[in-house]
Amino acid sequence: MPANVLYGQAGGVTAVINASAYGVIQGVRRHRDRFGRIYAAREGIIGALREDLLDLEREDAATLDALRHTPGGAFGACRYDLGPLESHHHQYERLMEVFAAHDIGYFFYNGGGGSMVTAEKVHVAARQMGYPLTVMGIPKTIDNDLAGTDTSPGFGSAAKYVATSVREAALDVASMAESSTKVFIMEVMGRHAGWLAAASGLAQEQREDAPQLILFAERAFHRLEFIQRVQETVDRLGYCVVVASEGLRDPDGRLLSVAEGNDVEDWIQLGGVAPNLAEMVRRDLGYKVHWALPDYLQRSARHIASATDVEQAAAVGERAVELAAAGENGRMPVIRRQSDEPYEWSVDTVDLARIADVETTVPEAFIREDGYHITEAARRYLRPLIAGESWPPFVNGVPAYARLEGFPVERSLAPYELDEQVAPQKGSSEQGANGGA
Amino acid sequence: MPANVLYGQAGGVTAVINASAYGVIQGVRRHRDRFGRIYAAREGIIGALREDLLDLEREDAATLDALRHTPGGAFGACRYDLGPLESHHHQYERLMEVFAAHDIGYFFYNGGGGSMVTAEKVHVAARQMGYPLTVMGIPKTIDNDLAGTDTSPGFGSAAKYVATSVREAALDVASMAESSTKVFIMEVMGRHAGWLAAASGLAQEQREDAPQLILFAERAFHRLEFIQRVQETVDRLGYCVVVASEGLRDPDGRLLSVAEGNDVEDWIQLGGVAPNLAEMVRRDLGYKVHWALPDYLQRSARHIASATDVEQAAAVGERAVELAAAGENGRMPVIRRQSDEPYEWSVDTVDLARIADVETTVPEAFIREDGYHITEAARRYLRPLIAGESWPPFVNGVPAYARLEGFPVERSLAPYELDEQVAPQKGSSEQGANGGA
Repeated sequence: MPANVLYGQAGGVTAVINASAYGVIQGVRRHRDRFGRIYAAREGIIGALREDLLDLEREDAATLDALRHTPGGAFGACRYDLGPLESHHHQYERLMEVFAAHDIGYFFYNGGGGSMVTAEKVHVAARQMGYPLTVMGIPKTIDNDLAGTDTSPGFGSAAKYVATSVREAALDVASMAESSTKVFIMEVMGRHAGWLAAASGLAQEQREDAPQLILFAERAFHRLEFIQRVQETVDRLGYCVVVASEGLRDPDGRLLSVAEGNDVEDWIQLGGVAPNLAEMVRRDLGYKVHWALPDYLQRSARHIASATDVEQAAAVGERAVELAAAGENGRMPVIRRQSDEPYEWSVDTVDLARIADVETTVPEAFIREDGYHITEAARRYLRPLIAGESWPPFVNGVPAYARLEGFPVERSLAPYELDEQVAPQKGSSEQGANGGA
Repeated sequence: MPANVLYGQAGGVTAVINASAYGVIQGVRRHRDRFGRIYAAREGIIGALREDLLDLEREDAATLDALRHTPGGAFGACRYDLGPLESHHHQYERLMEVFAAHDIGYFFYNGGGGSMVTAEKVHVAARQMGYPLTVMGIPKTIDNDLAGTDTSPGFGSAAKYVATSVREAALDVASMAESSTKVFIMEVMGRHAGWLAAASGLAQEQREDAPQLILFAERAFHRLEFIQRVQETVDRLGYCVVVASEGLRDPDGRLLSVAEGNDVEDWIQLGGVAPNLAEMVRRDLGYKVHWALPDYLQRSARHIASATDVEQAAAVGERAVELAAAGENGRMPVIRRQSDEPYEWSVDTVDLARIADVETTVPEAFIREDGYHITEAARRYLRPLIAGESWPPFVNGVPAYARLEGFPVERSLAPYELDEQVAPQKGSSEQGANGGA
């Protein structure tokens, strides 16, 4: 009898990570001869350790299909890293016990850079311990900072949300600037990389369109210069729309989101880049300012998902299964771009071992020379990633999302106490206005 | 030759105020025998005073049609009130001069309660001054606090945005609560009325669904009780999603958004209800908290507009013209509800003089007895208002919105210096995290 499949989700979830789950399920259905039952680990690797597994075979097929249009992580996603194999051997022993108890022969782990490190550790441990396990990574992250892939599933949809929202809010601001708000500031996710800030540039169709200023995590923030730019923009257009990365830092490397008052700069402590910038504009220019901080809204907005992104998310999930069925191991499907326009892409693969936990930032060539906008090269890269709409079904005016029953797989092992997490896993949502203690 | 038409927008704009403009234009097209040219006042009454008019006849017809799916105020919308007729007679003299110079016989003013007071003043002034003018109001406001109508165009779309966003973000939070964020707080507009907070309740399908707690502007905020509720919810479900009105006040009537530190309550000054509540939860319960403040995003999100709302916005615009063509004056079309399910509505009219600047708050019968959620009566009222989708066209992954040329009507009068605004016009967007000094 073929071995069973275990699928898990990890790290900050996205609007399309469940589309990857859908892809995995589709793949398994297509290769019924190669795979046994398909289970999901609740909360990713935590569920694998705790023997907390869900039996997807018992779920309604239509509900599983609805995962393709359901945001969030349907099986729970953890921020939890395994320790080094040498010092935390007990974790890997436990995992192999759980896998053996449920005849798991395939482990698909869907996450970002940190989660791929976990997947690779499991891969290496199984080999060292002689447990027959195929481990495949499946990429996701709204931050678009994964190495080895043209883009990360999840990013395109968040990017589409950001570009759409900025275009819409800017029309609001422009229409009222004469007698009301003159400056609007929107803070977007991206702790180390300004990819979502860059994506906001797609809202701009003509040269003077919003956003007029983009503040990248990749560029040090200079208050005087920023204030001057805002003033020039308001003088010229009557209003100014600013998009700022949550990871914005001052020239000394301090995060604006958590900067404290000091003698040199008159920071105020507000707990967010946007409110901080807003207060600067109010103080220095006296303009009426509004700011927005969509936070999780931007990474869960399945209603405005990119069709390209949804398709790629499903494709990498399905390909991971194909590869496993073909006997590959320790790899991750990635997106390769053949051309920008028309946009052509295919699924390639990379070794899990090569997905170091390295973050890919917005390249120099994508940031306008003055540092406040994107270049044509960036547009060419970004545009296809937000292309196409993929509306979920609506019932009673709100999107109808999959609601799984969640059938637990019967436990056969003793309970397991999780180790205290040594250092919290990285993730863009863990800092900024919403981060901290 | 028939007299010309002047249309103006005022107050906080919405995702569908331009659909009302579209309705007005449609109406005028249909009664070409009754009306001359159609103009728009730039920035509402400000443009009328400044003789700053746009000639809509010269715009491309397809662009004007695209107003139906374009958010914001296409002609600019002001927060500017006229003074009392007795003390500010010069304002009305100027208006009649401008109207006479451009043969304006019809004035359509599209706004909220305060703007209807302005429209009524113009109506009374014209009559007193013997200027032949038909004045019609057209309702709009995302706050849903206009008296005399079942709902205000603009509200249904903002409500749909809020309900959809909360449902989506809650799936994100629920999936990561085990090892990450346990409490998520979203602040929604509504300074005096908690209509949008109430609308978030529609995200809840089953009893334990998010939002678990709604904080209404209509109910005093009690910190201890709130914290207790949050804790109970996290204990029971593992997470808690809270939606709070920006107008939330403590038992002494102080706004949470601007509350200052004092001896009794350990407030911190953050400039927003959501970050304030988040800090309380962090301090009192130690949970990881995230918060979102969508601000203008919620009132400009045309991409997730309610089809019902779009239809009603266009209908009140068109009806205003029909009424004027039929010889009525000083009135405003409103929405009347015939039945909840199936939802049936018609357009009725009320006297402008009767639209006092009174705000309609969420009635007792719509708020659950404990004060933290909506009732079935509220659901019956709210559900049809967010029903139906009305996607705008998309180009290159972002919504394609109308871009008017803006053909100025040639001026024939001397320039006019605006009076200093005595008191700023009310508006939900003018307070809270984004209001103040």
